[in-house]
Amino acid sequence: MSTSIATTSYEPLTEETAIAYIEKLNQKLGLFPAPSLLLCKEIGDGNLNYVFHLSDSLSGQSLIIKQALPYAKVVGESWPLTLRRAKIEAEALQKAAETVPSLVPNVIHTDDDLAITIMEDLSDYTILRKGLIDGETYPNLGRHIGIYLAKTIFHSSPFGESQQEIKEISVRFTNPELCKITEDLVFTDPFFDHDTNDFEDHLKDTVNELWKNEELKLEAAKLKYTFLTKSEALIHGDLHTGSVFVTAEETKVIDPEFAFYGPAGFDLGLFIANILLNTISKTAIDEQQHSDLYQTITETVEVFKEEYKKLCQNHHVEAFIQTEGYVDYMLATIFEDAVGFAGCELIRRIIGLAHVADIDNISDCQKRLCAQKNALELGSTFILKRRNFRTIHQLIQETKDVLK
Amino acid sequence: MSTSIATTSYEPLTEETAIAYIEKLNQKLGLFPAPSLLLCKEIGDGNLNYVFHLSDSLSGQSLIIKQALPYAKVVGESWPLTLRRAKIEAEALQKAAETVPSLVPNVIHTDDDLAITIMEDLSDYTILRKGLIDGETYPNLGRHIGIYLAKTIFHSSPFGESQQEIKEISVRFTNPELCKITEDLVFTDPFFDHDTNDFEDHLKDTVNELWKNEELKLEAAKLKYTFLTKSEALIHGDLHTGSVFVTAEETKVIDPEFAFYGPAGFDLGLFIANILLNTISKTAIDEQQHSDLYQTITETVEVFKEEYKKLCQNHHVEAFIQTEGYVDYMLATIFEDAVGFAGCELIRRIIGLAHVADIDNISDCQKRLCAQKNALELGSTFILKRRNFRTIHQLIQETKDVLK
Repeated sequence: MSTSIATTSYEPLTEETAIAYIEKLNQKLGLFPAPSLLLCKEIGDGNLNYVFHLSDSLSGQSLIIKQALPYAKVVGESWPLTLRRAKIEAEALQKAAETVPSLVPNVIHTDDDLAITIMEDLSDYTILRKGLIDGETYPNLGRHIGIYLAKTIFHSSPFGESQQEIKEISVRFTNPELCKITEDLVFTDPFFDHDTNDFEDHLKDTVNELWKNEELKLEAAKLKYTFLTKSEALIHGDLHTGSVFVTAEETKVIDPEFAFYGPAGFDLGLFIANILLNTISKTAIDEQQHSDLYQTITETVEVFKEEYKKLCQNHHVEAFIQTEGYVDYMLATIFEDAVGFAGCELIRRIIGLAHVADIDNISDCQKRLCAQKNALELGSTFILKRRNFRTIHQLIQETKDVLK
Repeated sequence: MSTSIATTSYEPLTEETAIAYIEKLNQKLGLFPAPSLLLCKEIGDGNLNYVFHLSDSLSGQSLIIKQALPYAKVVGESWPLTLRRAKIEAEALQKAAETVPSLVPNVIHTDDDLAITIMEDLSDYTILRKGLIDGETYPNLGRHIGIYLAKTIFHSSPFGESQQEIKEISVRFTNPELCKITEDLVFTDPFFDHDTNDFEDHLKDTVNELWKNEELKLEAAKLKYTFLTKSEALIHGDLHTGSVFVTAEETKVIDPEFAFYGPAGFDLGLFIANILLNTISKTAIDEQQHSDLYQTITETVEVFKEEYKKLCQNHHVEAFIQTEGYVDYMLATIFEDAVGFAGCELIRRIIGLAHVADIDNISDCQKRLCAQKNALELGSTFILKRRNFRTIHQLIQETKDVLK
């Protein structure tokens, strides 16, 4: 379902025009039972997208209208940003729904010209980052993300999909503008004295040391190259804890506007790093919280491996799959890449443009400084020693050592 | 310059209609001075393409019309093959001409609907494979191919080109059908008892041994995965000695219909392997010939490295390029991949569907068997030990040891 309107017809919706838009669509698609009484509220942060919550007071039904804006305030003042990302996001959600329907919001309708996606209302869910900052725990989270990663990666990789189909998909998900943001903000700028960087004065010496660390920069350069050239699977591309909706039981991965054919370890790395940024933000006395977070990461990685192996056994399209050691080699490589990417993410969230509330919201300056330094140290260690960590347990042990 | 005719208008040219086609075009483009007296002769092998040699008896000028046929006899009876490959080939030649104009034929005109490329006449040149089989030597060949590889790879890689431009180019050169041929015939079928394989009875035991070698298959699987997922540069994709035209002084790389964004070491690996297949075909008493061929490979690799380093110094777009060890690391990785790919090529030219005349034309059965076994042994060694060969000299030493 895709409405086609001339490209020039793009204009940002308001709460009023959003209602009019849905009323018109309702006649065609029967989104709400007649008669309806529609109410609309803009609930997005307005930085990148409008998000309208639309509900029918009569039936009690509701949905979300997400509309991309043609710029990205968060990246820099008036940085223009392609509206095509709305199409990529909607198609990535639809692609994920083919393999993990319960782990993504349901897309109801798309409109390329208005850069609109109409989807399932997840108002009952909380953004994972907020939940973690509030000290909530999510016992199913690790398992869900592990399954999400295994299925989305396997089924879009040469192990689970034919090369021809992959080339076709990868053309559809060619995403240069958003990849450029990651290239710059995650892999380049934080390792150089670049004007997009944003870090606190008390970190100046530490950051200067990092910029002079040639060994670290060489390994970061290799990871950047991997990001730019390893086209293994259709990945989410921005799987931090702000891209996950949760309830006590459920998990929904949202916002895949950075989706593209990239390294299979990238999503896992970002997810691990963002859980660890929350871990780092908690003082060491929050022992139960630390332990819960480690448990989440452990389950993510172990469920991912287990599920991936099962898929390789039962659904592969690769003649070499039975070759002794091949699947284990692939999992080890994905994990190694993931650890490296996690390292880059830890560093860029402290030095780079886009920070995380987990750390920034620590009001005690000394504690904040300590958390920032821990993140930088852990990030550097992950990047430098990524080949040495063979299991998630070793990674967690290293984290514990740094946080001591 | 691109003529647009409805797609349904495709039909194979004959010598007569080729003349009519050029006469019509001549009015627009002035290819030959008026008056002209055009003669036409089909000179291709007719397996994949028609190649017409068109000359004007009055001016003495000539050109080549290459037309893709919608099937590929060589790959299998009536295997249909996209006509789009003509467009990819012409565009790849034009892309290469931006950086190495003297090393590719000049494209004069293209016609997508007829799958036609009109190009410079290279009738004075010899196909390198034929020249080598005839015992000719080409003192400039290594240098030319080294420069060709360095420039085409660097300028289409993230070291020499922006990620955005790369994504745009890589979409244009998405080439699933021809990549599938390489995937199957180079990387899969020769390692399994597959019906596309074609090897002589006397090799049965050796081939059976190879198919049971799990270590070799694991490394071949990794190289196949690299071929499928490493999108480093716009590569030729089929750089064997049948894709190179030579004179005593000049070199022209032709037929890039397999071009796509792939691993930077692939072309180098194929070229090395095909020179070595010729080396292997010569008896050990042809010492001067062996030495000339080793010299060609050595120069190819050394000029490639030297030229690539110069380009990194002077034309890079990569912030990390000055990072200690980065360029050397990249060159080492490209070489390692190339050695592995060379190994796969050596093996598939003996076991797989498409052989090389260098080996097949050895009339003495014992000598042919010996050459075939040498190629298989060398191929296996390259695949298994590719990380151990740090220089081309080590690779040549290994070759000498096997050929002893």
